[in-house]
Amino acid sequence: MGKWPRLPDVIGLGEIMVQFNAVTPGPLRHVTFFEKHAAGAEANVTVCVRRQGLSSGFITRLGADEFGIYLYNWLRGEGVDVSQIKFDTTAPTGIYFIQRGFPIPGRSSVVYYRRGSAASKLNEEDISSEYFADARVFHLTGITPALSESALKTSKKAVKCAKNHECKLSFDTNIRPPLWKDAEEATKTLLPFVEQADILFTDLADTMILLGEKDVDKAIENYPFDGSRDRGLQTWGERRFSRLKKGENKG
Amino acid sequence: MGKWPRLPDVIGLGEIMVQFNAVTPGPLRHVTFFEKHAAGAEANVTVCVRRQGLSSGFITRLGADEFGIYLYNWLRGEGVDVSQIKFDTTAPTGIYFIQRGFPIPGRSSVVYYRRGSAASKLNEEDISSEYFADARVFHLTGITPALSESALKTSKKAVKCAKNHECKLSFDTNIRPPLWKDAEEATKTLLPFVEQADILFTDLADTMILLGEKDVDKAIENYPFDGSRDRGLQTWGERRFSRLKKGENKG
Amino acid sequence: MGKWPRLPDVIGLGEIMVQFNAVTPGPLRHVTFFEKHAAGAEANVTVCVRRQGLSSGFITRLGADEFGIYLYNWLRGEGVDVSQIKFDTTAPTGIYFIQRGFPIPGRSSVVYYRRGSAASKLNEEDISSEYFADARVFHLTGITPALSESALKTSKKAVKCAKNHECKLSFDTNIRPPLWKDAEEATKTLLPFVEQADILFTDLADTMILLGEKDVDKAIENYPFDGSRDRGLQTWGERRFSRLKKGENKG
Amino acid sequence: MGKWPRLPDVIGLGEIMVQFNAVTPGPLRHVTFFEKHAAGAEANVTVCVRRQGLSSGFITRLGADEFGIYLYNWLRGEGVDVSQIKFDTTAPTGIYFIQRGFPIPGRSSVVYYRRGSAASKLNEEDISSEYFADARVFHLTGITPALSESALKTSKKAVKCAKNHECKLSFDTNIRPPLWKDAEEATKTLLPFVEQADILFTDLADTMILLGEKDVDKAIENYPFDGSRDRGLQTWGERRFSRLKKGENKG
Amino acid sequence: MGKWPRLPDVIGLGEIMVQFNAVTPGPLRHVTFFEKHAAGAEANVTVCVRRQGLSSGFITRLGADEFGIYLYNWLRGEGVDVSQIKFDTTAPTGIYFIQRGFPIPGRSSVVYYRRGSAASKLNEEDISSEYFADARVFHLTGITPALSESALKTSKKAVKCAKNHECKLSFDTNIRPPLWKDAEEATKTLLPFVEQADILFTDLADTMILLGEKDVDKAIENYPFDGSRDRGLQTWGERRFSRLKKGENKG
Amino acid sequence: MGKWPRLPDVIGLGEIMVQFNAVTPGPLRHVTFFEKHAAGAEANVTVCVRRQGLSSGFITRLGADEFGIYLYNWLRGEGVDVSQIKFDTTAPTGIYFIQRGFPIPGRSSVVYYRRGSAASKLNEEDISSEYFADARVFHLTGITPALSESALKTSKKAVKCAKNHECKLSFDTNIRPPLWKDAEEATKTLLPFVEQADILFTDLADTMILLGEKDVDKAIENYPFDGSRDRGLQTWGERRFSRLKKGENKG
Repeated sequence: MGKWPRLPDVIGLGEIMVQFNAVTPGPLRHVTFFEKHAAGAEANVTVCVRRQGLSSGFITRLGADEFGIYLYNWLRGEGVDVSQIKFDTTAPTGIYFIQRGFPIPGRSSVVYYRRGSAASKLNEEDISSEYFADARVFHLTGITPALSESALKTSKKAVKCAKNHECKLSFDTNIRPPLWKDAEEATKTLLPFVEQADILFTDLADTMILLGEKDVDKAIENYPFDGSRDRGLQTWGERRFSRLKKGENKG
Repeated sequence: MGKWPRLPDVIGLGEIMVQFNAVTPGPLRHVTFFEKHAAGAEANVTVCVRRQGLSSGFITRLGADEFGIYLYNWLRGEGVDVSQIKFDTTAPTGIYFIQRGFPIPGRSSVVYYRRGSAASKLNEEDISSEYFADARVFHLTGITPALSESALKTSKKAVKCAKNHECKLSFDTNIRPPLWKDAEEATKTLLPFVEQADILFTDLADTMILLGEKDVDKAIENYPFDGSRDRGLQTWGERRFSRLKKGENKG
Repeated sequence: MGKWPRLPDVIGLGEIMVQFNAVTPGPLRHVTFFEKHAAGAEANVTVCVRRQGLSSGFITRLGADEFGIYLYNWLRGEGVDVSQIKFDTTAPTGIYFIQRGFPIPGRSSVVYYRRGSAASKLNEEDISSEYFADARVFHLTGITPALSESALKTSKKAVKCAKNHECKLSFDTNIRPPLWKDAEEATKTLLPFVEQADILFTDLADTMILLGEKDVDKAIENYPFDGSRDRGLQTWGERRFSRLKKGENKG
Repeated sequence: MGKWPRLPDVIGLGEIMVQFNAVTPGPLRHVTFFEKHAAGAEANVTVCVRRQGLSSGFITRLGADEFGIYLYNWLRGEGVDVSQIKFDTTAPTGIYFIQRGFPIPGRSSVVYYRRGSAASKLNEEDISSEYFADARVFHLTGITPALSESALKTSKKAVKCAKNHECKLSFDTNIRPPLWKDAEEATKTLLPFVEQADILFTDLADTMILLGEKDVDKAIENYPFDGSRDRGLQTWGERRFSRLKKGENKG
Repeated sequence: MGKWPRLPDVIGLGEIMVQFNAVTPGPLRHVTFFEKHAAGAEANVTVCVRRQGLSSGFITRLGADEFGIYLYNWLRGEGVDVSQIKFDTTAPTGIYFIQRGFPIPGRSSVVYYRRGSAASKLNEEDISSEYFADARVFHLTGITPALSESALKTSKKAVKCAKNHECKLSFDTNIRPPLWKDAEEATKTLLPFVEQADILFTDLADTMILLGEKDVDKAIENYPFDGSRDRGLQTWGERRFSRLKKGENKG
Repeated sequence: MGKWPRLPDVIGLGEIMVQFNAVTPGPLRHVTFFEKHAAGAEANVTVCVRRQGLSSGFITRLGADEFGIYLYNWLRGEGVDVSQIKFDTTAPTGIYFIQRGFPIPGRSSVVYYRRGSAASKLNEEDISSEYFADARVFHLTGITPALSESALKTSKKAVKCAKNHECKLSFDTNIRPPLWKDAEEATKTLLPFVEQADILFTDLADTMILLGEKDVDKAIENYPFDGSRDRGLQTWGERRFSRLKKGENKG
C-alpha cells in the first residue's frame, strides 16, 4: 500500500492531442490510411520523466469524447497522475494529422484541428496550489499560453504556484507561428515566462523572434535570463534540446 | 470537342467532408487505424446522378489544404463540375470519424470536426444565378442551412435562383440534432424549404420534429406541401428514401 | 488530491496475457498478420468493474519484458490499481494466439504459450492481507489454481484473506481441460473454492466435470453450495454468465 | 462559367496503367499485399503540367473495365481533359507489378501485363486534328510507337497534327527493350521522331542504341537533331531528365 | 528414406493462377489494397486430396517469373508432386483480381489477365503416360480444354493416358462463358469429356448449355453418361458439388 | 519420374521457428501488428543451398500444431527434403518476436518463446545414418547443442554419421548467451564441434568466449582447428560470415 507518491515530482501543463500519422509518405490527398497516437510536448515530458523513475502529473482539459478517454488512459497507463485532468463537455479533444516526406523529402508537416479544443478552455480554477507542494520541476512550453486568453491566465497562475512552492520552472519557448497573431504578440506574451525560467529550452529561430536579434553571441549576451539559475540557449544539430550554464561558453 | 455540357442538369449545395472510417470495430479509444474517404449527403447525390448519365455540379467551400484538394479532385474525378467550388483560406475542410459497432452492435456513430469549417463560410456571393440556367433539379438538405447564418442565406438564394430558372427543388429534411440549438430553431428554419420543395425526402423522426405530430396519417394530411407537385413522406424500412404522390396512399 | 481510493472495492487474482488475434480467418498456417491485445478472465472483470465506477485492483506476476510492461500499462490505463503486481525476472509473460473460423466456421480456437509463465510463479508472499481491508468482492476463476502448485496456494491464501475481511468470494469454475492432468485433479482442487463461493459462475460442462452429474435438476439439488449465500448454476444460451438464488428455480 | 479552357495547352498520347506496388520489399513470391496506383510516363507529364497551372489533355484507349474507369477518373480528378479517351470493349486495361529491393537492393523491377492491352488498340481515328488547335506542346515517348503497328501510326498522325498547328513536339526516347523485337527495329522506328522533336529527353543508354555510338561527344556531334530548336542529350546523375541547347556544351 | 510415393494417387491438369483479392469490398476502382493467394479449380482438388492423406500431383505450365515460382512453391509446400510442372519462358503466369460485394452485395466477380498465359501453352509433350501408372483418379475441368487448341489436345491425351492405366476420370464441366466463342463450341468440345467421365460434377446452368435442355428430369434422363459408372447431376443449394448414382433419383 | 534426388547434398539439423516481426519500430509494448515469417539459422542454409541448385534436407522436431505445419510446408515449398522431420505431440513449436529499432536505433532485439519447444525434444533416434550416405556437407550451429541434453546427444550422433560417410562438417559457433548457463558450459560443449569442423563460421565475440582470448592474432594461432582442412576465423564488418585458409593471413 501507499507506494504511489501522493504528489508528483514533475508537473506538466498543456494540451495533449491525438495524432493521426499518415501510413504512407506523400501529400495527404493521396494517403489512404492513418495510425492513431498520443502526442503533446508537455505530456511527452511527463511520460519520459516517469519512465526514468520520477513521479509526474499532467494538468489539462480533454473533450468528453472517445479521443479524450484514449489520451486519459494513455497517460494513466504510463503512470502519470491524472487526478488534475478535467473532461470538458463543451469542446472536443484537439487532434492533428502528420504528412510525411512532402513537399520536403525527409520532413513532416502538420494539419491541426485544435482551434477551440478542450485544452483551450483551461482556466485558473484548473490549477490547485497544493498540487505543487512536493514538485521539483514544473514544465511549460510556449504553446500553452498561445491556446487562448484563459489558457494564458492558467499558465501564469501555475507558474506562480510553482514559485510559491520552490518548484523550478522549466520553459521551452516552442513558438508555433500559426498559433500567434504576430511576432509582437508572441514576444509580449512569452518573454515574462522566459524571464522567470530556471531551465530554458530554446533555439535560434525562437530567439530571433523573441529578441529580434540574429547574432547568436549578442543573443546570449542579452538574453533576459537570471544568471543565478541554469539556462540554455544553444541549438544542437537538428535537435531542439539545449542547455547552457551562464558564462560557460563565453570568455 | 464540346462534349462536356456547359451547365449541369443537377446541382447540389452543401458540405463535403473527409471521413475517417475506423478499420476495426469498437470504441475509438481502442482503434489504431483509420481509412480515408470522401462523403457528404448532397455531394453523394451529384456523384450518383453523374454515374447514371446526367451532368451535375456541386457548390461549396473547401479549406485551402490537402483535404480540400482531395475532395475537389474526388468530385472532379467522378465527373462532377467543380467550377463553382471555392477554396477558403480562413477555415479548414470539415472532417469526421466513424466508430463502428459500439456502443450498439451493428450501428455506427460519428465524431465531427466541422464547427467553423470552410463550408460554414458559404455566402450569397458563392451562388451564381446563371449556373442554374439549364438545371432540372437543385438538391439541398437540412444540413446546409444549419451550418451557419451565411450558409442559411446561401441556401435561400440558391432556392430562389433555382425557382427563377424553373429548376425543381429536391429537399431532404435530414435533421441532425447536434447542429441545431433546439427543435424550434430547426422547425422555423426548415419549414420554408419544405413548403417550396418539389421533391421531398424525409422520415418519421424528422416529421415529428417539424410538425410536432406523431400520428403518420395526420402528418401526411397536414404536411405543408403543395399538392400540385411530387412529394414524399414515408419511411421505407431502415432506408430514409421515400416518395409519395399526393393522394396516392389515401382513400 | 486524495481522489483515488487507497484500497479497491473489487480485487482480481490471476493471469493476464497478451493475445495475438489473427487478422484473417482460417488455419494459422495461412495467417500473415496478427493484432496484439490484452486479455484474461479475471483482469477483464477488474477492468469492467472499474468502467462501471467501482475501484478495483489486480494481483499477478508479469514477465520483466516488453509484454509484461504492456499489460501493466494497459491495466493501469484502465484505472485498475497495479500496486500488487510484481515483475518476475525468471519467467516470461504468458501469450496466446487466436485462430478464427477454423476448423469450425464462426468459432475460434486458441494456441497457448503460457506454460512456466510469470503468473505460474505466483506465491503466497504476493498476497497482502491488508489489501483486502475495504474490498467487497474478490474474484477468482478455476484457471488460477490450475497454473501451478504455488499459484494454488496463492489462491487459497487470497480466499482466506478475503474471508477475514468479510469480502465476498466470486468464483467462476472456468475449467480449461488442457491445464489439468485429469478431471479428478480438477474436481479435487476446485470443489473447495466452489464450497466457499458467495457468488458462483459456472455452466453445464463444468458441472458435469465437477459433480460427475449430467442431470441439471439433480446437479442443482446436490450442488455443494451454502444456501445462506447468493449462488448461480444456470447456463444462459451460449453465455457462461449465470446466477441463481437458492430455491428460486426449484419448486 | 467558362473557366475551363476548351482546348489544352499540353497534350499527351500513350498508355496509362494500373500499378500494383509491393507493400513489402523482396521477391514478389513472398509479397502478400499490393497497393494500387495510376502510372504512365506521358500521363504523369500531363498531370504535372496541370498542377503547375497549364491546361492539359490525354489521348489513349482504356479497357471498358473497373481499372479503366479508375484511370479515367484519376486523370479527370487531376484536372486533365479526358474528352479524347476511348473505352475499348475488346481489350483489357494494361497493368504491372513493382518488385522492390530485389534482386538489387534499392532498385525496383517490373512485371508487365500489358501485351494486347487497350492502349495497343490505339488507331489513327483516335486523333482529332482540331484538338491540337491551341496546344503549345505535344508530349510523346518511345513507348507508344512500340505498343503496336496501329499505335505507331497513331503516334505519327498525332505528330503531324501537332506540326500543323505549330505545336512543339516533346519527345522522350524511353527505349524499353522488352517492347522491341531488336535494337534495329527500335532505331528505325524512333529516329524519325527524334528528328522531328523540338524538345528531347534522352540518356546515354538510349543514345547508344539509337546511334550505335558510345562516345558522348561524337554522339552529340552527330545527333540527328535540327539546331534551330531546343535540344537535350545529357544524363543528369541517375535522373533521365536532360536538356541541351545546341553548341552550349561544345567549344 | 523412400517415404514419398513415386507416383501419385490423384492427378490434376489445368491452370493455377495468382489471385489478387480486394481487401475492401466495392468496385475495384475504389480498392487500394489487394492480397495475393494461389487458386485454381484443379489445383485446389490436388491440395485437398493431399490434406486428406492421399498423394497427388499437378500438371501445368507456369511463367518463368516470380508469380510462377510462388505457385510452384505453394503446391510443393502443400505436398503436391510438382515433377511434371514446366516453366515456360515465352508466356506469363495467369493472374486474376477478385472484386467483392459489387455490383451484387454478397457476390464476387472476377477480372482475368490469363489470355496467352503459360498454361495456355500446355501441349501433348507435357503428358507422360507413365505418370498415370499408379493413379486412381485424374481430375479435369471444362476450363482446361478452353484455354487453347494445344491445351485441348493435352487434355485429350491425358484422358487417354488415364484410361490406359485404369485411372478414373473425374470431370467438372465448369463452363466459363468468357473463355468460349459460343455455347456451340463449348458443347462440341466438352461433351466427349462428359461421356468419358467416371465421376461428374456439374450444375443446372452448365447442363442447360451442354444439352440445351432446361427440364431437370429430362436432362437426367438424356444425360450422355455411361450407366456403369458413378455419375453426378444435381445442384446442391449454392454449392456446385453434386453426385448421383444412376437410377437413384428416378422412379 | 525419379527427378528428385533420394538423398540430399546438404543436411541441416536444428530448430526452425515462427518469427513474428513487429510491423512498426519501437518497444513491443507499443506495437500493434506483427507479421509471421519462418526463420532459423540452419534452416536458412538448407533453403539458400537449394535455391543455388543443390539438394538439401532438414532434420528437426516440430510441434503438432498449426505453426509446425506452417514451417513444414514452408521448407517443403522451398524444395527442402522434409522426410526426416517429426511432429512432436508433447511440445509446442518454438516462436519468437522481433522488436525493431529499440532501444538501439537500427538494431533489432528478440523475445523467445522456445524453452521446452519441440526441437528441444530432438533425440538420437531422429538421426538415420543412411540419410547421410550421399551428403557432402552437414551444417550445424552452436544453437542446437544448447537446446537440451538430448539435442546435444543428437548433434553428436549426427556429426558421427556425417564423418562415417565422408561428409564435411560445417559449423557456425553462434553462441547465444541466454541459451547457456555460463561461458564455461558453452566452451566445454562447443569446443569438440569446433575441433571436428571442416568449415568454420565464427566471430570475435564467440572466439573470446570459447578461447578466453581477446588478441585476434593469438586466437588464430591457438585456434583448435586441424590445419588440413578449410577453416574460418575472421569477422567481416558487421557480417558473421568468415573463412580463412590456414596460414593464409599469417606471415
